Amino acid sequence: MARVYRIENFPITPAAIQVQETLFHNANGYLGVRGTLEEGVPAGTDTMRGTYINGFYDIVPMKQAEKLYGLVEDKESMLNAADAQTIRFTLEGERFSMAEGRVLEIERALDMDAGTTLRRVVWRSSGGREAEFRFVRMASFDWPSLFTIDCAVTPLNFSGKIEIESTHCALVRNYSSPDDPRLGEGGCYLHPDGQVIDGDMSFLAARTGTSGLALCSGVAHDLSLPADARIAYDEARHEAAFRFSLRLEQGQTLRLTKYAVFCDSIRESDPLEASRREMARSRGRIDEVYRAQREYLARFWESAEVSISGNDGDDRSMQFNLYQLLQAAGRDGKCSIAAKGLSGEGYEGHYFWDTEMYMMPFFTLAMPNLARKLLGYRYAILDKARENARILGHKKGALYPWRTIAGRECGGYFPSGTAQYHIDGDIAYAVAAYYLATGDLDYLKAQGAEILLETARLWIDVGCWYKGNFRINDVTGPDEYTCIVNNNYYTNACAHYNLRWAVKAAEILKTEGAFDAWAARLNVAAGELEGFTKAADAMFLPYDEGVGINPQDDSFLQKPVWDLAATPAENHPLLMHYHPLHLYRYQVCKQADTVLAYCLFDGIESPEVMRRSFEYYEKITTHDSSLSNCIFSIAACRLGLKDKALSYFGDSLGLDLLNTHHNTKDGVHTANMGGCYMAVVQGFAGLRIGEDGPSLDPFLPEKWTGYRFRFQYRGSRLQFAMDKAGASVTLLEGSAVRLRLKGAWAVLDRPGAVVKG
Amino acid sequence: MARVYRIENFPITPAAIQVQETLFHNANGYLGVRGTLEEGVPAGTDTMRGTYINGFYDIVPMKQAEKLYGLVEDKESMLNAADAQTIRFTLEGERFSMAEGRVLEIERALDMDAGTTLRRVVWRSSGGREAEFRFVRMASFDWPSLFTIDCAVTPLNFSGKIEIESTHCALVRNYSSPDDPRLGEGGCYLHPDGQVIDGDMSFLAARTGTSGLALCSGVAHDLSLPADARIAYDEARHEAAFRFSLRLEQGQTLRLTKYAVFCDSIRESDPLEASRREMARSRGRIDEVYRAQREYLARFWESAEVSISGNDGDDRSMQFNLYQLLQAAGRDGKCSIAAKGLSGEGYEGHYFWDTEMYMMPFFTLAMPNLARKLLGYRYAILDKARENARILGHKKGALYPWRTIAGRECGGYFPSGTAQYHIDGDIAYAVAAYYLATGDLDYLKAQGAEILLETARLWIDVGCWYKGNFRINDVTGPDEYTCIVNNNYYTNACAHYNLRWAVKAAEILKTEGAFDAWAARLNVAAGELEGFTKAADAMFLPYDEGVGINPQDDSFLQKPVWDLAATPAENHPLLMHYHPLHLYRYQVCKQADTVLAYCLFDGIESPEVMRRSFEYYEKITTHDSSLSNCIFSIAACRLGLKDKALSYFGDSLGLDLLNTHHNTKDGVHTANMGGCYMAVVQGFAGLRIGEDGPSLDPFLPEKWTGYRFRFQYRGSRLQFAMDKAGASVTLLEGSAVRLRLKGAWAVLDRPGAVVKG
Repeated sequence: MARVYRIENFPITPAAIQVQETLFHNANGYLGVRGTLEEGVPAGTDTMRGTYINGFYDIVPMKQAEKLYGLVEDKESMLNAADAQTIRFTLEGERFSMAEGRVLEIERALDMDAGTTLRRVVWRSSGGREAEFRFVRMASFDWPSLFTIDCAVTPLNFSGKIEIESTHCALVRNYSSPDDPRLGEGGCYLHPDGQVIDGDMSFLAARTGTSGLALCSGVAHDLSLPADARIAYDEARHEAAFRFSLRLEQGQTLRLTKYAVFCDSIRESDPLEASRREMARSRGRIDEVYRAQREYLARFWESAEVSISGNDGDDRSMQFNLYQLLQAAGRDGKCSIAAKGLSGEGYEGHYFWDTEMYMMPFFTLAMPNLARKLLGYRYAILDKARENARILGHKKGALYPWRTIAGRECGGYFPSGTAQYHIDGDIAYAVAAYYLATGDLDYLKAQGAEILLETARLWIDVGCWYKGNFRINDVTGPDEYTCIVNNNYYTNACAHYNLRWAVKAAEILKTEGAFDAWAARLNVAAGELEGFTKAADAMFLPYDEGVGINPQDDSFLQKPVWDLAATPAENHPLLMHYHPLHLYRYQVCKQADTVLAYCLFDGIESPEVMRRSFEYYEKITTHDSSLSNCIFSIAACRLGLKDKALSYFGDSLGLDLLNTHHNTKDGVHTANMGGCYMAVVQGFAGLRIGEDGPSLDPFLPEKWTGYRFRFQYRGSRLQFAMDKAGASVTLLEGSAVRLRLKGAWAVLDRPGAVVKG
Repeated sequence: MARVYRIENFPITPAAIQVQETLFHNANGYLGVRGTLEEGVPAGTDTMRGTYINGFYDIVPMKQAEKLYGLVEDKESMLNAADAQTIRFTLEGERFSMAEGRVLEIERALDMDAGTTLRRVVWRSSGGREAEFRFVRMASFDWPSLFTIDCAVTPLNFSGKIEIESTHCALVRNYSSPDDPRLGEGGCYLHPDGQVIDGDMSFLAARTGTSGLALCSGVAHDLSLPADARIAYDEARHEAAFRFSLRLEQGQTLRLTKYAVFCDSIRESDPLEASRREMARSRGRIDEVYRAQREYLARFWESAEVSISGNDGDDRSMQFNLYQLLQAAGRDGKCSIAAKGLSGEGYEGHYFWDTEMYMMPFFTLAMPNLARKLLGYRYAILDKARENARILGHKKGALYPWRTIAGRECGGYFPSGTAQYHIDGDIAYAVAAYYLATGDLDYLKAQGAEILLETARLWIDVGCWYKGNFRINDVTGPDEYTCIVNNNYYTNACAHYNLRWAVKAAEILKTEGAFDAWAARLNVAAGELEGFTKAADAMFLPYDEGVGINPQDDSFLQKPVWDLAATPAENHPLLMHYHPLHLYRYQVCKQADTVLAYCLFDGIESPEVMRRSFEYYEKITTHDSSLSNCIFSIAACRLGLKDKALSYFGDSLGLDLLNTHHNTKDGVHTANMGGCYMAVVQGFAGLRIGEDGPSLDPFLPEKWTGYRFRFQYRGSRLQFAMDKAGASVTLLEGSAVRLRLKGAWAVLDRPGAVVKG
């Protein structure tokens, strides 16, 4: 069945248009274009008309209300790049707009096999002229700098003059929403830096105000140009406008293909020349580009799809989510995955722990080469993380910034930003998970072991010994409703794992004969690794004898429980309605915290403790964060609470398609999408990659008749499938794999070998 | 001996000029003028040329780096009012400036009997002309809107033309220091709002940009006007310039008296008319104003002086400090005492807990009528404090803003601002202390009991029950090097006292028959007061059995001790060199915290515990705050550690005169000055006012031969004196007083009665 998400003949409201801008955006990991209307939105509709380049940013002031030593005073912010979307049509003097005349038919679709979006409108003008408009858009996976719009216009009940204006405007500003902390404040923009108008092509150069980056965008059209075609450049707007008109007979179709390329100085030494080169490569070859796109996606689905049988809605939602991950992920080692991917300006294009903890599992298992690139980005900013650690007063180690683009800490409120030291443990966890899944020794030697070492050093520096335990004070865990606490369970658990893996990595390097040079280069002191082990052995993990659970931190259980039953629905999310200090005083969680540790670290506590804790935290977690439900789903799976697992999964799966958090307009929730993958693969199928290989402990959700997915392990490709008859794992390709299914070890010794359970 | 602080023939460096701007400022509780040079500072000297009105402010943006619910986004900031200081002299074409030619003699003096400052300069111009300049300045205590400059110029070795320009400029900006968190950022200014030039008088009206306040300043001169005298108004500068010239013979003295009045719309319905009225009242009557000033001060010293014998330096420093308190204190119930008084822009003219905890003891004991006005200010902003409590999520009670002018929370970083809930306890403490010392039932009925009730309600709302104790989580104590903690000892001790006093006040009202109406007006619920008692009875005060001390908060002792020995001297104050999160992770204190509780609450712990705690905190306290040494001095007195008491007192006494904190240029440290008074009166003399009356437990510091001070108790005036022969208390005036001296009760039954001990 075709992988298409389609909506038809919906009411054209401002809210619908805004959400669709996100849902129908086109992106390829490098470039993202919001699904805005070519002809412009109806007056009064709040639109985020954006085009974004992954990792391309300016530095903007972020003044602190009160200056304190070490607080960041500026931040990196993703820029809205040139607007190449605009195309206006005038039919016999009547301008096409969905706000005028009457929309007779409307359809929007995301074709996840073709890698395109479609908007089809049958429109009747006030004057009674009817025409069909089709807009097919694509961000090319193979030509990452390329974005195309393929228009077709057909007069349905008249013949006459069609005027067309297609613009390329490089002086655009970021979207602004002063009231929502999760958005930037706009005002950030690129400065014009020259233009080349070459025949019908326009190349507009721009540079950032502060970060010293340059970007060139180029626009061209595919068309036998009519006699009156002309291109005009408006300096004040830094805009090129391509205008022409022609006569169309009733039923005759005009097809106009608009090519836009974007090249930046992070990747290209001469963005203008690169833009010309990229334009020359693609222009006039739209069908070739379409074909390549289909082939790319066929490979993607072949290796990465999670297929669900017996519930088309879930199957489609899962496709949608995985497609968004593909669209969002940077692939060049110079960027990562923003909280909103390339679909909107929410969180200003910043990368958080989301990438490592929520999205890396998908890429590590399904697209390990891409996972390697994402980890490469973290290595590229390791020096910045070292600098950050120094600012925080640490003599050794690296502290990754809580939110960043190019490595600078961009969090303005450190108690729920920089203080989330667990990001170090999260990145270390992803390094270990990648190594476990791929056995990529080259990576470990070149980059991974160094990250593990530097993050481990940070834990040693931040922690302290007290009453025989190694403790970590004054940090914030994932749950931002309680900040600056001692011995956050999740943080300490991550630090423990991080310290252990720093030692393991060193041992692997020893085995490989690579240790001495590495240790010398990184000044590994005598006894330093033993110190890691000692701290890990003594790591304090809070446990309350009375309640029999792991408190989120030392003093969590001393606080009163927030009365969620008495909290009005309109007061959610709580962070938008209560002062942080008030939130801090209650047992109330924005998201999974201790429960997340249970999902990551098998056997960290007894099943009884984990179950009691799970039930305890369930009652006090609001899931105001989109990163929460999926984790509760996995934890429920591990505890055998299938109904709950399904329920939490259901709350995750359609988050953006159903706009359940009411802010999909600002961009998709990429981490939640990764979390849905995790819920199925790590939750329902129970896949874990341990040091002894993969293991699966699957069950079949009730409403499904089956599900299956493929994953890679140390270069071999495997397929998991489950239906009512049972589960199976097949070795598709590669060398033998020893794995455990439902507790039983098996060896798949050659392609085609199957184990059932 | 005349009470004069004088410096002579010091090197004229920019640093000296800056500090002198503060030390020689003139203020009267309403109006303050920095001791800047009339003729302007030498080029390149950083000057804070300021004139301030207590409680007069504008609202300026204070954007949060990251928006969170309830965080304040603007603040009140004290404005620099019109500059009426400027007077320029030109001697035969040579402009007088201390940076040109040569200063042959220089003298600056603060005459604390006359209430004036003097600058005397004997100057030789580059051309060899010598002249003496005398500038006598005054901020009148009796005419609070009046500031005068009385100049005398005498050519010493020539006769010739003297040109004089005296200006009145109302378009001035606040001082700016972007790098120091303790200063504002300037840019804040008054907008011109009309002018009246009336003969040689100028009245310049101005209004604030946002707060809706108006201010008028008027300037006039006392002089038989020479023929060429003229006044010119420059609209762009909103400046009136009064210019004239005359011929002076060698040895002849020109005397020019400049009168400036300032009237604002907080106190006057028509500031312009008020300015004209005030000018008419004072102009031409300089000698009368001087006489009134002397009489005012004679009364002040008579009732308020702390005289020290045997150490003139200490005596002079104490005079200086008390004089500064007199200059700083608002007297009209519409304002309070800013952290820097009216002497500079440090802390933006904000009022903190300093007033109640460090300065009120002086006023309550020596000037109770003024103390009443200061408490009246807190009552005036009680509704704002109620609003603030609602913002913080509290359903009941009032939470006073941590820093404010007109009642709005002005702290930009709430973990060391708003989170300092102890300010409620501090204000409640001051209410109780005032009532204990004065027995002012009218105050208690009209205002005091309501403050006690509303602050007590806040504690009930913020606290929680856990394991049988009443606890207070997520607040910050006075020590800002550890923020957002559970059960800060000081806070809980204050809350305990606050709750008890709310109940006591209610009982007093019952006795007075005033309870029912009061309780009805304030909706005192049945059982509410019992709830206060229950919480107070169960208040949790942390104690560590192992170390035998009171930890500053629940987890303080779990943290490693900061290595002060290894901290370079240039890294102090720590807050200017370490990230707050780093500071929070160590046992290191900016100032007295637990130790302060011991000083306030007699017998709260056993002497052994207090002594161990004192010694413990001594080792880890940096005294980076100017509020610290004085408290350690008092605590040392109580513990019988006389040497330490003297040493800490010595570190306090000359803080501004010796500029030991290197920031006296930004203004005097008024709280420390009050702390010096407390150290002598409450520390050395051991004066406490309990429910059973005053008690004293004095000792004579070694380097002194004696000391004495007067204080009031319930309308009676008493004098304490101590010399090597012993201590005595004399009833000077008023009805009988029962008191305890060195543990022995005595009754002073009529004026003249003395008890010795």
